[in-house]
Amino acid sequence: MTDLPREPSPWRTLSSRPVYANAWMRVREDQVLRPDGAPGVYGVIEPVRVATGVVALTDAGEVWLVGQYRYPTEVYSWEIIEGGADPHEDPLEGARRELKEEAGLEAADWRLLGGELHLSNCITAERAFIYLARGLRQVEAAPEATEVLRLLRVPLARALDLVDQGAIQDAVSVIGLTLAERALRRGG
Amino acid sequence: MTDLPREPSPWRTLSSRPVYANAWMRVREDQVLRPDGAPGVYGVIEPVRVATGVVALTDAGEVWLVGQYRYPTEVYSWEIIEGGADPHEDPLEGARRELKEEAGLEAADWRLLGGELHLSNCITAERAFIYLARGLRQVEAAPEATEVLRLLRVPLARALDLVDQGAIQDAVSVIGLTLAERALRRGG
Repeated sequence: MTDLPREPSPWRTLSSRPVYANAWMRVREDQVLRPDGAPGVYGVIEPVRVATGVVALTDAGEVWLVGQYRYPTEVYSWEIIEGGADPHEDPLEGARRELKEEAGLEAADWRLLGGELHLSNCITAERAFIYLARGLRQVEAAPEATEVLRLLRVPLARALDLVDQGAIQDAVSVIGLTLAERALRRGG
Repeated sequence: MTDLPREPSPWRTLSSRPVYANAWMRVREDQVLRPDGAPGVYGVIEPVRVATGVVALTDAGEVWLVGQYRYPTEVYSWEIIEGGADPHEDPLEGARRELKEEAGLEAADWRLLGGELHLSNCITAERAFIYLARGLRQVEAAPEATEVLRLLRVPLARALDLVDQGAIQDAVSVIGLTLAERALRRGG
């Protein structure tokens, strides 16, 4: 894919034990020899699902944003359409499902933005795939805006201003919006 | 900051217990009432430190990239300069320290890209701050390229091509590089 140099792991795993699990993640602790040869521990978070994001772009150049309260960060967060795919499922299928469930939309044109992304690679094995979806068609009434989920449509340029201002804080959303703008600018 | 609507938490926390901790993170499990009122559990990862990223841009328009093997994702990863800040430290101080430790550089001009970012807000409370650093000055010999850490300087446009191609996969790096390009294009 590129000529960037890559090297094998300088870590050695001596043993591994599960320390916590729920329906969405496993946590394990490995006994390791670090790159400098010293012994240590490494705690690794393994999410069960693959994260997916969808930049749903209308013919008029607007993107759909979803607002919801995020329990771990304790903030109300405006984001692109996000969800998860099962580990052995094509992430695109998960993205299609979320677009339909959250906004009642189908898209004719899907494009992967970047490649497989790693959201927090110091502590998690989480993988994410983010798509640009165009040729949108409303197939169901969009879900009612409840206290749980709100929907907005804003011009892509406005969404990027919200990123610059720090009002959109979610990493998958920032990556999706900036890479979508790049793809469009380069005539994608 | 913006007129985006925000709402209070629709979750209720009934109880909370620690389930795992090491020097870098705590994991807790909360008993909750979900937004729909049903009981459930929520596992939350709380990293001890705040993540920092630095897009170190030379006067010639090149960025510094660091290569290292990432244990949780099991890939050799090319990234911007990254590190961590202590919870009560200004994240900019952590960023300055990493720039010096990893590349032997100081910068005259620092600019925050976006705002406080949330890397994986479904399962972690991790926060990140990413800076554009210019006016670089070599103050120490850059660390030897060992098997643990490698350094490269590439034009910013080339680094963004690597993002588009999926060769740079780390979320903090993708966000830093795309927002740096936006800031420069808008005359920042």
